[in-house]
Amino acid sequence: MKKALYSQIGDPALVLALKNAEPTALAADQVRIKVLRSPINPADLMQISGTYPLHLSLPAVAGSEGIGRISERGSGVAGLKVGQLVQLPGGTGCWQSETVVSARGLTPLPDADLDQLSMITINPPTAFLLLSDIKELSPGDWILQNAGNSAVSRYVIQLAKMRGIKTVSVVRRTDVVAELETLGGDVVLLDGDDLAARVSKATGGAVIGLGFDAVGGTASGRLATCLGRGGTLVSYGAMSGEPVQISQMSTIANDVTLRGFWLAPWFCVSTPARCKEVFCEILALIVAGELSVPVDQVFALEDLDQALARASQGGRNGKVLLAPNGV
Amino acid sequence: MKKALYSQIGDPALVLALKNAEPTALAADQVRIKVLRSPINPADLMQISGTYPLHLSLPAVAGSEGIGRISERGSGVAGLKVGQLVQLPGGTGCWQSETVVSARGLTPLPDADLDQLSMITINPPTAFLLLSDIKELSPGDWILQNAGNSAVSRYVIQLAKMRGIKTVSVVRRTDVVAELETLGGDVVLLDGDDLAARVSKATGGAVIGLGFDAVGGTASGRLATCLGRGGTLVSYGAMSGEPVQISQMSTIANDVTLRGFWLAPWFCVSTPARCKEVFCEILALIVAGELSVPVDQVFALEDLDQALARASQGGRNGKVLLAPNGV
Repeated sequence: MKKALYSQIGDPALVLALKNAEPTALAADQVRIKVLRSPINPADLMQISGTYPLHLSLPAVAGSEGIGRISERGSGVAGLKVGQLVQLPGGTGCWQSETVVSARGLTPLPDADLDQLSMITINPPTAFLLLSDIKELSPGDWILQNAGNSAVSRYVIQLAKMRGIKTVSVVRRTDVVAELETLGGDVVLLDGDDLAARVSKATGGAVIGLGFDAVGGTASGRLATCLGRGGTLVSYGAMSGEPVQISQMSTIANDVTLRGFWLAPWFCVSTPARCKEVFCEILALIVAGELSVPVDQVFALEDLDQALARASQGGRNGKVLLAPNGV
Repeated sequence: MKKALYSQIGDPALVLALKNAEPTALAADQVRIKVLRSPINPADLMQISGTYPLHLSLPAVAGSEGIGRISERGSGVAGLKVGQLVQLPGGTGCWQSETVVSARGLTPLPDADLDQLSMITINPPTAFLLLSDIKELSPGDWILQNAGNSAVSRYVIQLAKMRGIKTVSVVRRTDVVAELETLGGDVVLLDGDDLAARVSKATGGAVIGLGFDAVGGTASGRLATCLGRGGTLVSYGAMSGEPVQISQMSTIANDVTLRGFWLAPWFCVSTPARCKEVFCEILALIVAGELSVPVDQVFALEDLDQALARASQGGRNGKVLLAPNGV
């Protein structure tokens, strides 16, 4: 078996290396899973670089979400057959050709689009919860988001459309505007200093109470200026590498609140019933093909270096995936 | 009579001018007030400069709070005698030797320290409400604030002490540390990059749930790093002229919320009973001499230019006041 291992924090291209390893022996309550797909998420690269707030004990196998097929099961495992497609336990250890995990709590998946299923753990629930758990939204309400072409934003556009919520998506490239509009984006605008005026014009002067900021820096502040009095800006990413910058004209004069959203602790503080409810709603949509994001390219695990290089490039139009058991 | 008038937005030293005017005639329900004291607040200078979120119709007489003595009353006015000390209606028009206002709702004041009474309208309720209306605080809880030597921060230190709430005040000058400690500040620290570690050490690792930011820029972010998980940073000033900068390590990873506080709309949305309750509690403390801030210098209205110049200087250790009817 092969695993993408890192023993120290640093530039993923430098610290991450593909290692051969002997297969792990199987305990009675465990299953062996052949990993089929795992995306390279920005958070994975931040984790390896040491800029992510969760710190793993090293050495660690990278990769925080993915799917695989059970290839062997321990003597005490019932209900999960060899060949069953499953969601990998999230967090770490997905970028390897096989993994051995406890069968307990493992989620079987219906056979469907492997690429789409492999991205189910992180981005779709983030989008789902941004729309559900911050503020009560009713059909006809508007939300606003930057990084409009990101996977989370695309999920937001699709989920909002299903709920009758209207979206303003702010992007930095004109070439993605038409595509996001086709996806269901009500308003798609280029970022810029006069953003608030253009948002107001494009939405017919809608009062927008909720914004999602994945960028940070001055982009956060521009988003805040588009919110109505008492609005909420949710910081859930830092793609610019800059801290959130928000004017006191927003915080003080317009009573805008800034708060964060992070999925990792949500899994810990939410009831199992709520976690399952969110997961099942998302899974049903993905299986039905009603919720999807584009895939840029799928790489074999052996081509990890190329995959990392591609994932670090701007201007892509989809996720980079690893296929540790063949593309 | 004389009034400090401005007809256009701009540098207060350039656009504000002392004008002679005929006394206004008195209607039946009005009183004439000789203005005794009015502070030069940062918000006054921002208002004149056009950087304050409230815009007055121009020309306007500057000065947003103060006190005076009734010198004449209209034929229909009852209950307010000539010679009565009163709080000027807040907002505008305090930097003049006399003002004519409706007697209705005018608040009589007991004779006490004129300097201290003249600053009752804005900074003390701001401090009071920061401690009361953002988050439930119990004796023994800690709060954190920057601009520790400002008037609001000094009121916060005194009010917190009375309530058994402990304070960390962050300052930029070593020469004010001992004075703020004598005033009742539990911990007074110089701002700097390692602030969170020093705050933790000085408070014995206290989990601080509430911070007050009057500065903006990177100072906001440093304050945020000192807050515990789920803490709230309140933006109520912008003394640096910079937008609030706050890291996603605070917003996302540490669940810190940033919100604003602005006194002006508080007066509009609060019940008259609540407004009176807050005012009376503050007034009692000021009259008793238990709540006060230092005064740097008192200027005659004729010396407006010098007063403005002094108020714009850093390194002061108190408010600059105007005394339009004699120092």
